[in-house]
Amino acid sequence: MGDERRTRLTPDERRAQLVALGVAALADSPLEDVTIELLGQRAGVSRALVFHYFGSKQGLHHAIVGTARDSMLRATELRPELPPLDRLRDTLDRVVAFVREHPATFYSLVRGAASGSLQVRELVDEARQAQAERAVSVFLELGERDSPALRIGLRAWVAMAEQELVDAGIGSDIPGDEIVELLMRTAQATADAVAPIHR
Amino acid sequence: MGDERRTRLTPDERRAQLVALGVAALADSPLEDVTIELLGQRAGVSRALVFHYFGSKQGLHHAIVGTARDSMLRATELRPELPPLDRLRDTLDRVVAFVREHPATFYSLVRGAASGSLQVRELVDEARQAQAERAVSVFLELGERDSPALRIGLRAWVAMAEQELVDAGIGSDIPGDEIVELLMRTAQATADAVAPIHR
Repeated sequence: MGDERRTRLTPDERRAQLVALGVAALADSPLEDVTIELLGQRAGVSRALVFHYFGSKQGLHHAIVGTARDSMLRATELRPELPPLDRLRDTLDRVVAFVREHPATFYSLVRGAASGSLQVRELVDEARQAQAERAVSVFLELGERDSPALRIGLRAWVAMAEQELVDAGIGSDIPGDEIVELLMRTAQATADAVAPIHR
Repeated sequence: MGDERRTRLTPDERRAQLVALGVAALADSPLEDVTIELLGQRAGVSRALVFHYFGSKQGLHHAIVGTARDSMLRATELRPELPPLDRLRDTLDRVVAFVREHPATFYSLVRGAASGSLQVRELVDEARQAQAERAVSVFLELGERDSPALRIGLRAWVAMAEQELVDAGIGSDIPGDEIVELLMRTAQATADAVAPIHR
């Protein structure tokens, strides 16, 4: 780090560097412990400079979790050219790969869910909602009727996926295609459970 | 509350009353906002008295979440006399009934998951782990082979169940048997996804 202290970064680069260090810190620390002081130490800059970029610890957490959400959603966008179930499987393949390549980014979202700040929790909710809507769009295209039960069920399935990604995706060497198979089958079971009743 | 101020309670009764008020407060407040001061106000007793029972805000949260965990687990114990899948369905029926009858107790567990205190989060993890082990025991009795993938999958299914219980159990009027059907099917899909690979 010693040399980096003397590196001149543009404000945008400095901000991105601080956010990246914050994301990395969340791999093994709860959100509460990722403070303006800690980031200043890790980046070799003053507390005042970190404060200048984020305004508060909450602002810092917002920047970290927002960046994590955006990279995750961008890396796993649906490919509209694929048939619906292949499209879901393809995005899940990329979700598992993303989580294994960038565990700290994924942890930022998981940890952000426990934030005391409503704004930070909203970012995480937006990411979950976006993933749930991707699944909903696939099953609507397959002919399921839109209903609150379908949307609630697939939102709950996203919570299952998140836990599976933490425990199996990061915490085990279970092959990625087995994780994806589990998620495909439970998504289908969710749609099947809702369909006969609401159609 | 005015009259209760003058009621003489035994220490055990007073403690139970304070925990019950804390559980009730968690129905609409994040854990962070349920403080020793707040409980004192709601119970019409001094801050010092509440402090005497719990020692700290963290001690208070531990008592609230521990009580919620115990009531939930007690109310939904497996009935060993039933065949395995009926036993799972029966306990899920009682889980849904419990959540609808005691939403504040259930919220205590959901909110406890976001606690800054490791001890409080451990209580919630114990409850999730206990529910996951109930499901594991059912599928082992049905002949599934025990594996990390089965245990991780059913632990993730508990996360799905929790989200479904918040959104459908408390937040909607979706009939209880539809919620249970969804959870039965996704549990079965989880076991099915794991089985062909690990047997």
